[in-house]
Amino acid sequence: MKKCNFLIAGISQNDLDQKVWERLERLSQQKLLRLTDVDSLLVKFNPVDSRFMESMPNLKYIGILATGFGKIDLEYAKKKNITVCNVPGYSTESVAEFTFSVILDHLRDLERAKRQVRDGNYSEFGFRATEIRDKKFGIIGLGMIGTRVAQIAQGFGADVSYWSRNRKRDAEKKGIKFQELDELLLHSDFLSLHLSLTVETQNFLNRKRIAKIKKGAVVINLAPMELVDIKALSERLKKDEISFILDHSDEMTNEDLQKLLKYQNCIIYPPIAYISEEAKKSKQEIFVSNIENFLSGNPQNKVN
Amino acid sequence: MKKCNFLIAGISQNDLDQKVWERLERLSQQKLLRLTDVDSLLVKFNPVDSRFMESMPNLKYIGILATGFGKIDLEYAKKKNITVCNVPGYSTESVAEFTFSVILDHLRDLERAKRQVRDGNYSEFGFRATEIRDKKFGIIGLGMIGTRVAQIAQGFGADVSYWSRNRKRDAEKKGIKFQELDELLLHSDFLSLHLSLTVETQNFLNRKRIAKIKKGAVVINLAPMELVDIKALSERLKKDEISFILDHSDEMTNEDLQKLLKYQNCIIYPPIAYISEEAKKSKQEIFVSNIENFLSGNPQNKVN
Repeated sequence: MKKCNFLIAGISQNDLDQKVWERLERLSQQKLLRLTDVDSLLVKFNPVDSRFMESMPNLKYIGILATGFGKIDLEYAKKKNITVCNVPGYSTESVAEFTFSVILDHLRDLERAKRQVRDGNYSEFGFRATEIRDKKFGIIGLGMIGTRVAQIAQGFGADVSYWSRNRKRDAEKKGIKFQELDELLLHSDFLSLHLSLTVETQNFLNRKRIAKIKKGAVVINLAPMELVDIKALSERLKKDEISFILDHSDEMTNEDLQKLLKYQNCIIYPPIAYISEEAKKSKQEIFVSNIENFLSGNPQNKVN
Repeated sequence: MKKCNFLIAGISQNDLDQKVWERLERLSQQKLLRLTDVDSLLVKFNPVDSRFMESMPNLKYIGILATGFGKIDLEYAKKKNITVCNVPGYSTESVAEFTFSVILDHLRDLERAKRQVRDGNYSEFGFRATEIRDKKFGIIGLGMIGTRVAQIAQGFGADVSYWSRNRKRDAEKKGIKFQELDELLLHSDFLSLHLSLTVETQNFLNRKRIAKIKKGAVVINLAPMELVDIKALSERLKKDEISFILDHSDEMTNEDLQKLLKYQNCIIYPPIAYISEEAKKSKQEIFVSNIENFLSGNPQNKVN
């Protein structure tokens, strides 16, 4: 294969810069397409099941403009010798920095401060704040994002510990201490979730674990909310014993969302953790490079 | 002297915790006072000139519940053998963390994000952000606060440089690079001022220097606004070439304030940078310890 017959599904004009579209065009045969002509499928969040793949007997490549690939039938793709590539790690820094944005905003009550100034009131009266320094900062899941969050927390002078399925000796050498999960839940003043969603991690923060979270803790989850037992969480929030910060993406049902919106100690953001300009650029770069690498017979970021 | 005849001026019930008031009471003679009985004066921002001191012929000690001592006639106090002690450094961490709070809030548009969620809109559409990582982070004045800001910026992976009257070799060994002031102004993406206000630093960020600040830079000043030529600043803000973040304390005239309030790219906070619980506690601790140390003949934090 020298050029592709792309099918682009669920990726809109907004997802890619003009220059990237132009690069895609250069990689494409640019002719009228029937499904049976398609050899390359580009998707973002669209489900790609075996039936859809069957309709494209010449399909050789699926490129995902995202990290997650849970909606692609990887086994079927493998059987049919279809290469599936994703875009990993592009938003590590963006999400790690956002984690501290929302923590600090919560600790400093910036929204109220700015509103007060707009109303002509410059008093510091009634503002309270606590510092990150010397607090226990717990990280669940020490992948790329978790590791960067740990490093930034160390910059703030926090006492950083982690739990992960596998011990990370390199991180431990740099002062990021391993703790058993229960210990981490019981003692952390800040608790940040950085697990990827799999069959095993679904409902990871279950009722029993939520009950163990330290009173007064600030819990941050910028990972999928499927990691969390929402009913148990909302009951703990109701007691006003912890704060919870999340960014809402479509996976949460409206019913679950309504449960959480009731609580002032639950702070909900749109899904903007990953959207830095640097991340967007890097995401597009990896996405197109994946195609180029596939065409040159050296696929990168293959997930099947 | 074993106990004090305190005069407390301009320090209100709110300034000190109950326990600290009780400690003060234990250090006090607790009797009806005439000015001529006063041997110890406790103040926050009250001016203490030579005439006021003359009215207290037995005055031996002035304790300031603040870092600044510009309103005390130190020379006269020295001549009269009056020990003046301040509270230095108590808010270092609180101010350094606040610096990143306001930077990140600005980069991530958190206020709009939260407002949008309250209005039932969970879209990330229209949000833009940039990262701190790999950006040039310039620090003017590498004292205690400047140094902590530099260290936290390094945690974020920024490229950190500083300018200060005196070279700081220890910091340079840790990767905080010295730059000439003009270079720092011309190249920094973030520029944070951490100078103390003196006769020499008044109007430090003058018209010529403001003109040199890199287009697109975010400038943060949580130090006194007397460091800045407000007219020149407002003219640069008008061109929408830089953003400026400050906390407003009483020193700025209402006229100056009105000049700045006009610009969306000027973000003004109440003076809440220094108010963390940890800082408050440490401030009171140092304030009372200063008195105890003075009474035991070993004054600390003497400024005259």
